[in-house]
Amino acid sequence: MRVVIIGAGNVATHLAKVFKAVDVQVAQVWSYHYENAVLLANQVNAVAIEDLSTLDQNADLCLLAVKDDSINELVAQLTGFKGVIAHTSGSVSIKVFENLFDNYGVCYPLQTFSKNKSLSFSNIPLCLEASNEKTLTHLKEVANKLSANVREVDSEKRKFLHLSAVFACNFTNHLYALAEEILTANGLEFDILRPLIEETASKVQNELPLNVQTGPAIRNDNETIKKHEELLKQQPALLEIYKTLSNSIKNTR
Amino acid sequence: MRVVIIGAGNVATHLAKVFKAVDVQVAQVWSYHYENAVLLANQVNAVAIEDLSTLDQNADLCLLAVKDDSINELVAQLTGFKGVIAHTSGSVSIKVFENLFDNYGVCYPLQTFSKNKSLSFSNIPLCLEASNEKTLTHLKEVANKLSANVREVDSEKRKFLHLSAVFACNFTNHLYALAEEILTANGLEFDILRPLIEETASKVQNELPLNVQTGPAIRNDNETIKKHEELLKQQPALLEIYKTLSNSIKNTR
Repeated sequence: MRVVIIGAGNVATHLAKVFKAVDVQVAQVWSYHYENAVLLANQVNAVAIEDLSTLDQNADLCLLAVKDDSINELVAQLTGFKGVIAHTSGSVSIKVFENLFDNYGVCYPLQTFSKNKSLSFSNIPLCLEASNEKTLTHLKEVANKLSANVREVDSEKRKFLHLSAVFACNFTNHLYALAEEILTANGLEFDILRPLIEETASKVQNELPLNVQTGPAIRNDNETIKKHEELLKQQPALLEIYKTLSNSIKNTR
Repeated sequence: MRVVIIGAGNVATHLAKVFKAVDVQVAQVWSYHYENAVLLANQVNAVAIEDLSTLDQNADLCLLAVKDDSINELVAQLTGFKGVIAHTSGSVSIKVFENLFDNYGVCYPLQTFSKNKSLSFSNIPLCLEASNEKTLTHLKEVANKLSANVREVDSEKRKFLHLSAVFACNFTNHLYALAEEILTANGLEFDILRPLIEETASKVQNELPLNVQTGPAIRNDNETIKKHEELLKQQPALLEIYKTLSNSIKNTR
């Protein structure tokens, strides 16, 4: 089995490394920035290519791990590829390959990747979709080598899955950032919140979040809410977020 | 050293158990609901008391771990207590003890406690404040037995610390709940998000959240944001939260 990887960003890097770790050969790496392709290729014993016309069209799998808005344009340049072609995006439909390929699909890893932070791939949900049964079987075989958490999710559901991930990951991280803003403005360090952040995520690993909600809004403790709003009166943006989320908590009880 | 505990809720329960674990004697437990005091007292070899007038006034430490709005009323009933008296609240000032006691303080454990979920206390920030040096030394001695993460935080800073914890814990958990709402409405299970939630919290254990922000808003990917807003057009409350937090992320770049 030989894989070619289009992209050298966070997702491409993690995927290439895990392929190497499970002895799947990464044959080639291409990136808009050739120097990034070289950097990644060197780490996984692959060949960096500068020109897409030199792509190995007989590789088994071509995986596009690039920015959402580059997928369309790149797909048009890969039409001669003979193996299975798939992208890794949460929000781009499988239809992007339609009429250009026969055997295509999606392999969306539901995780937040940073280049410099290693993580275990074995537990990451890999959400698959394919143009036909044969291709689905092929993608499953590959995905099962990477993770024990392989699922089928069609494009329509995947859109909502990606949206839910924005709430659970991107927005959550932003709340951490706002908490840090409040702390540093008052001579405190972010460090003090880290055990709380870890435990908050840990609690929902075995429970549904609705069942472990705590804080003044769920207790309808309007005295504390009023005090907090008073503390934020000079920061209208933070105050708006405080009010919006507190009201939302009250409304879900 | 003998401690009496006022309260039998989540915080009181965790504190009583960790006192027992480090061989500090919990002498008595009182609660508004006597049956809860009995349940907790039985777990830590303490005596449950029904009437505050039977409180052991010669214990070394009296710890109030009750709802914020009960502290005032209870403090007035404990005026004969001869040891150090302290509460565990994030948002109540140390002044609640003023003129009623000489040796008083605050020991605020910055963590989210659920009765049925055990957690390691050794890393939890215990935020101390005291009426005088002698009392501070006493509280530090006790706190150091419970955690390796003991800090001094005065009432003014503690208010903002508590506020930041609402963002990092209560609001974060609510975002998990909203993510679950989106998933279940589309035939997906919350389970699929758990590895992502864990990794999102794990990432900020060694980095500042500002440095690891991901998602469409920080990339200024307005195409994806528009698609997401379209998916939420039938849910005005979720749409408002999506817009408010996306704009806030854009403004912090």
